[in-house]
Amino acid sequence: MAKYKYCPLCAHPLQVGWVESRQRSYCPQCDFIHYENPLPTVVVLGLLDDQILLIKRGLEPRKGLWTLPSGFIEKGESPENACLRELLEESGMTGQIQQLIGVYHVDSSLYGDLISLIYYVHLDPGHPIAGDDAADAALVPVSQVTDLGFVSFNHAFQQFIANREE
Amino acid sequence: MAKYKYCPLCAHPLQVGWVESRQRSYCPQCDFIHYENPLPTVVVLGLLDDQILLIKRGLEPRKGLWTLPSGFIEKGESPENACLRELLEESGMTGQIQQLIGVYHVDSSLYGDLISLIYYVHLDPGHPIAGDDAADAALVPVSQVTDLGFVSFNHAFQQFIANREE
Repeated sequence: MAKYKYCPLCAHPLQVGWVESRQRSYCPQCDFIHYENPLPTVVVLGLLDDQILLIKRGLEPRKGLWTLPSGFIEKGESPENACLRELLEESGMTGQIQQLIGVYHVDSSLYGDLISLIYYVHLDPGHPIAGDDAADAALVPVSQVTDLGFVSFNHAFQQFIANREE
Repeated sequence: MAKYKYCPLCAHPLQVGWVESRQRSYCPQCDFIHYENPLPTVVVLGLLDDQILLIKRGLEPRKGLWTLPSGFIEKGESPENACLRELLEESGMTGQIQQLIGVYHVDSSLYGDLISLIYYVHLDPGHPIAGDDAADAALVPVSQVTDLGFVSFNHAFQQFIANREE
């Protein structure tokens, strides 16, 4: 993410200094402090019987990759609502959240670091239709999935499948 | 949180418009988009035998309240590291994370909406010493705790105690 150079409240050039135990950018004119935090995201591990919902990414990073639907939690939105919104936007499908599989800290080349909440969603019967930033969407037998393209997604998927088979 | 008026990259006045399915502020000169997301925080439910670690808040909101240590996850930091850092900064104590108790979406009057990850931490033996933004710190018998001042903290605490007694 590009570094802030100007105060977003008063347009004065920012300075960098030691603020609340860290190097942070701040405004010497109006006291704005640019706190930087990981961005919260949700990831949908959606199952319908023995099929898993995959989407083909339409955007970078990893454009063209078949993987799980995911996206940012928007201001004013709960993680659960964000999860079901991303599911609907990217695949046209609906479902019920069953459980939070895990919380991951991920370093994204494009967005800096992320906090990813991966949810298991029981999908309602239906056929996926790609939308929003998904180029394609499909239900694929779980047994055919070998790589979801992101370490956190693979870890959560393998853990989930192992727990399900116990 | 104060609304951005100027582009933090080029200082041009921002405009508000429909960008990626939402009303967002953006820069008509350099295409900066001001995405807004809930801020990720961690909360420490720390136990040493049958005592729970509480701190007295030294800052708003709820200055003077006895409650759980908590704070923001900083850029580049995992939730687990943030949890143990806040524990150390506010109480001087150390410990081991045992489990994520829950994820809460919280509306803070001061900071807008937050995603709060509440962790159960098994504390190492020792005595708390208040630091950073805690005005005081103490180990209190779990049986004496009736109100932690925040709905999410109370919910996580009650759920945790109920599960422990099962």
